[in-house]
Amino acid sequence: MDLSMYAVRTDLALEARDSVSEERGSAIPGVHSDVSEDEGIKVTKIDILTPEGAAALGKMPGKYITLEVPELRGKDSDLQDRVATKFAQEFERFLTELGISKMAKVLVVGLGNWNVTPDALGPLVVENLLVTRHFFELMPDQVSPGYRPVSGVAPGVLGITGIESSEIVQGIVEKSKPDLLIAIDALASRALERVNTTIQIADIGIHPGSGIGNKRKGLTKEILGIPVIAIGVPTVVYASTIVNNSIDMMKSHFGKSTNNQGKILGMLDTLQENERLSLVKEVLEPLGHDLLVTPKEVDEFIEDIANIIASGLNAALHEAIDVNNVAAYTH
Amino acid sequence: MDLSMYAVRTDLALEARDSVSEERGSAIPGVHSDVSEDEGIKVTKIDILTPEGAAALGKMPGKYITLEVPELRGKDSDLQDRVATKFAQEFERFLTELGISKMAKVLVVGLGNWNVTPDALGPLVVENLLVTRHFFELMPDQVSPGYRPVSGVAPGVLGITGIESSEIVQGIVEKSKPDLLIAIDALASRALERVNTTIQIADIGIHPGSGIGNKRKGLTKEILGIPVIAIGVPTVVYASTIVNNSIDMMKSHFGKSTNNQGKILGMLDTLQENERLSLVKEVLEPLGHDLLVTPKEVDEFIEDIANIIASGLNAALHEAIDVNNVAAYTH
Amino acid sequence: MDLSMYAVRTDLALEARDSVSEERGSAIPGVHSDVSEDEGIKVTKIDILTPEGAAALGKMPGKYITLEVPELRGKDSDLQDRVATKFAQEFERFLTELGISKMAKVLVVGLGNWNVTPDALGPLVVENLLVTRHFFELMPDQVSPGYRPVSGVAPGVLGITGIESSEIVQGIVEKSKPDLLIAIDALASRALERVNTTIQIADIGIHPGSGIGNKRKGLTKEILGIPVIAIGVPTVVYASTIVNNSIDMMKSHFGKSTNNQGKILGMLDTLQENERLSLVKEVLEPLGHDLLVTPKEVDEFIEDIANIIASGLNAALHEAIDVNNVAAYTH
Amino acid sequence: MDLSMYAVRTDLALEARDSVSEERGSAIPGVHSDVSEDEGIKVTKIDILTPEGAAALGKMPGKYITLEVPELRGKDSDLQDRVATKFAQEFERFLTELGISKMAKVLVVGLGNWNVTPDALGPLVVENLLVTRHFFELMPDQVSPGYRPVSGVAPGVLGITGIESSEIVQGIVEKSKPDLLIAIDALASRALERVNTTIQIADIGIHPGSGIGNKRKGLTKEILGIPVIAIGVPTVVYASTIVNNSIDMMKSHFGKSTNNQGKILGMLDTLQENERLSLVKEVLEPLGHDLLVTPKEVDEFIEDIANIIASGLNAALHEAIDVNNVAAYTH
Repeated sequence: MDLSMYAVRTDLALEARDSVSEERGSAIPGVHSDVSEDEGIKVTKIDILTPEGAAALGKMPGKYITLEVPELRGKDSDLQDRVATKFAQEFERFLTELGISKMAKVLVVGLGNWNVTPDALGPLVVENLLVTRHFFELMPDQVSPGYRPVSGVAPGVLGITGIESSEIVQGIVEKSKPDLLIAIDALASRALERVNTTIQIADIGIHPGSGIGNKRKGLTKEILGIPVIAIGVPTVVYASTIVNNSIDMMKSHFGKSTNNQGKILGMLDTLQENERLSLVKEVLEPLGHDLLVTPKEVDEFIEDIANIIASGLNAALHEAIDVNNVAAYTH
Repeated sequence: MDLSMYAVRTDLALEARDSVSEERGSAIPGVHSDVSEDEGIKVTKIDILTPEGAAALGKMPGKYITLEVPELRGKDSDLQDRVATKFAQEFERFLTELGISKMAKVLVVGLGNWNVTPDALGPLVVENLLVTRHFFELMPDQVSPGYRPVSGVAPGVLGITGIESSEIVQGIVEKSKPDLLIAIDALASRALERVNTTIQIADIGIHPGSGIGNKRKGLTKEILGIPVIAIGVPTVVYASTIVNNSIDMMKSHFGKSTNNQGKILGMLDTLQENERLSLVKEVLEPLGHDLLVTPKEVDEFIEDIANIIASGLNAALHEAIDVNNVAAYTH
Repeated sequence: MDLSMYAVRTDLALEARDSVSEERGSAIPGVHSDVSEDEGIKVTKIDILTPEGAAALGKMPGKYITLEVPELRGKDSDLQDRVATKFAQEFERFLTELGISKMAKVLVVGLGNWNVTPDALGPLVVENLLVTRHFFELMPDQVSPGYRPVSGVAPGVLGITGIESSEIVQGIVEKSKPDLLIAIDALASRALERVNTTIQIADIGIHPGSGIGNKRKGLTKEILGIPVIAIGVPTVVYASTIVNNSIDMMKSHFGKSTNNQGKILGMLDTLQENERLSLVKEVLEPLGHDLLVTPKEVDEFIEDIANIIASGLNAALHEAIDVNNVAAYTH
Repeated sequence: MDLSMYAVRTDLALEARDSVSEERGSAIPGVHSDVSEDEGIKVTKIDILTPEGAAALGKMPGKYITLEVPELRGKDSDLQDRVATKFAQEFERFLTELGISKMAKVLVVGLGNWNVTPDALGPLVVENLLVTRHFFELMPDQVSPGYRPVSGVAPGVLGITGIESSEIVQGIVEKSKPDLLIAIDALASRALERVNTTIQIADIGIHPGSGIGNKRKGLTKEILGIPVIAIGVPTVVYASTIVNNSIDMMKSHFGKSTNNQGKILGMLDTLQENERLSLVKEVLEPLGHDLLVTPKEVDEFIEDIANIIASGLNAALHEAIDVNNVAAYTH
């Protein structure tokens, strides 16, 4: 049974790096990481600098920022406010690093299907966004200082519209001529604990096959002619991933306590993570049991995270909106 | 063609014609009408053939079909099915008369704001539409005969997206290249009894200022390069219109019964309809009382009509879908 | 044509008083009124002290407080916060005047149909209520000071449940044994400008036939054995009422400007308000045109008012919740 | 009867029986089973006849019917109609066997939280129910033959109302005096493949701790004085259960193919199912990873199953509604 060819697919640079680091046990050439943590919010910055780094992680070269907030599902509104503020600060700095000007016109695209709760993150963010482009178009003299032109659309998914969302976005970009595109998308995670607790910001756009749902054509600078920042949140996980992670936890658990995990877990103990996942998939898939699942409380979790991202974007995109009071601008 | 002198604004050709006919008491040159009625469904076809006819009615030259179903608010599901079937038949004939081919690619655009119930008709129709374009794009060999490529989008309104819906539609048309555009829109009526009981089909597109909400740029053949059929349903009415119509009803009522309406209604009795409406507006507007209103049961009415139109379109656009069983294809 | 027997039905004591005052041109014996106004919020307190007063107004003896906020439909969130705070202050004082203790157990009942937007006010308030009774039941020692036991239910309407909502509430009261019942209900107004801008608080309970929808049995102290405070908001208005009010405005308008309103309005000018309304209804009803209507933006208006009432109740019922910061406790 | 020693908790009698049968490898005394299958719908009837049988399965004595439809998540509307029809037939027979008369008054209670999609099954069923009790109360002479008095309520959950749902139901039962109570509830499953594919009918009522959410007091004949039929559908599953089942599938898989599962799975292979589940929970719970999860498409699945149950109930409860055409009576 040859499992070695199995490629670890993850939408998060963080997970790719962890997975590769674990195997190698050493730093990855061409990949630079930086971690900070503050009151329950862990911020990891990963720069993939070279083609070698990109090949090693299976991710595009670019800048990735990840906010991890394990307690985010705990309905703590203070924590939510702090995450929105932190997100706004990091996003603003990200824009500066990319050289995006304070008055650059922004189009925010909420990808995903509003009828499928775990896939509705993008549309929900757009719904809570402070949209201003029309004021600049219709009465430019009357717009207060500290705002920039922001527009927002939720293009739907292929099964609902019959048109690739990337084609719809391309058409809207050509007509409305933004300087920057921000695309929000729900992702599949490799770990149940990351679902609805992690936010990734990346400057690499949206690539075919990323995320859940039907978005096969990409949204990238090459295609659209403007920079594309992708914001992603894992909202679902494969059953096989839960199983695989759990076996891993059992491995650590029994490894620590008894030194006899070999007896308890058999060959499962000695397989590499990817091989084991492949094994689990091999068993579950033919039985139709490798479903994508989401936590029972998904309605509330998605709404909370959408509010955090919308609040954070409102504060990051408009100087007149204070990062200390971002929550007031969303519903 | 200067329509600016026209006083009474209505989105329905039928109302314009009735209003003008009443004043003139004679046929209107350049306007041809045809009426039929069948089991509670009245179908009126108005062709505006000449610039004179257009000027007289204050409407664009073109073909207009109106279905009036006074009992449509009565929650009678048999009647709803019959209206869907009649709509499908009339729409199919309309396509044939316009020379639209059986395989013409169609984009259905649901205009309006999904957060405002009386303005959500268009988005709701699109939600219930049978969308097929992606099958033709991805696996053209496997599509059963009797279907054509249909796609559907709800572009939102200016206040929500920051972009004119006409710009969004234009971008999508350029990318997805349909042969025909069908635009669904909620209208303001001149009569409370027409609200949610009347459907207008017209081949003239959507013009600036039509309908409710923010749709200032048009969707027309001139702009988009393809024919545009507009489907409109009155879902709201101005308070001033209700008042004006009621005075009219009082006029008929007392006219018939007593011959002394002059005493009862005073000068209101002798004013022409438009003058009287101006008078009412003159009084209500400064007080902020000329609101757009909708019947209390708007949620249910809008859903019912959206189902009728979606069912009718599904049957009219796809030969494989039987007009006798249209309801099965929507939610 | 005898119109004199026509009884003016209104759910608002304020409207009844205004109507009677206008006719009489003098104070009404047994009725005491008090008005104050502050930054766009007008508070009127009407005490109906005697059976004569009750008979004159056609309302039950009791205390009535009305908040009128003409600008409330203007989406001004500062104003909304001030109204919530004012509502909380008035409601708290109302409880004190009625001798309701700080720890009295409260059941809040949201009457109405959640599927019909203008009738969904009650259920929406309950949805945003801070409910605490279960903490007192399950872990009484751990409840922080400053809270009282509050529970909330939305019993639905007869057409949805098959059971009178009053029977459902009676059953719940007998089991859960609150000391006070607060019932929230949507009302029909006699004036379009009061729709979604006026809140009435009264200590008289809910009586058969009040409000819109099916609530024929009452919720009163006689039936339930505990005091019942009713909170009502007009959310709909009859078309006939709009017409009648408009004629009244025209009367004032032309009366002021020309002194010849008799010529303009004919007999309409000399009729008493009730007679005129009766006349209008006589014309509209047989034609099926006397619909209950609501402003086009009803979705947003209802949500805003429900938030105001829920915020206000949360602050008024729990000492630990600050009236200056009530908004934080609702969605 | 002490059930406390029972390790594997499941809400389905079927799962309990399978689990016990597997261990024992023989028939269970006091438990009678009967299975039939027809075009993708498997119907299992389990009668627990004696206290011994009850103790063995850890379930109350009574009649249990389970419909298993593995393909039910496949969006096949023909299959959905057939399941509704089969459900109606089985439910009608169940009523007859219990000696419930054709005119017995029925109260349907939709347990669960309408704000949490996987817990909203009960409220959704009630929303689609044909409610008739009020016609019998208000105009008994005019009700067509073939109908019986049916009412329906969704009492909410403790965290939303502050009152135990059982208390609310008890109060409503005392006031509205039904002869039979039918309670609909979402359950936790022991297998991901049963989520939204299985329906259980049982005559044992609702017992403390069953289902998901807060329903600690029961709904039983002892408490309410009338028979209580429970209809349950598994809509969520614990992550630990997915892991445990997957290990089981791996066990069968490698057992069949290689005979060397001992080497592959180590001690996991030799543990009994319950011991293994305990082991998995022991590892996952302290890490907060034993979440309740639901398939990504939960919105659609729940709506489909709610329609099936509502359609089936409408046909089973009213003779005038044909089991061959049940779908027409729901939305």
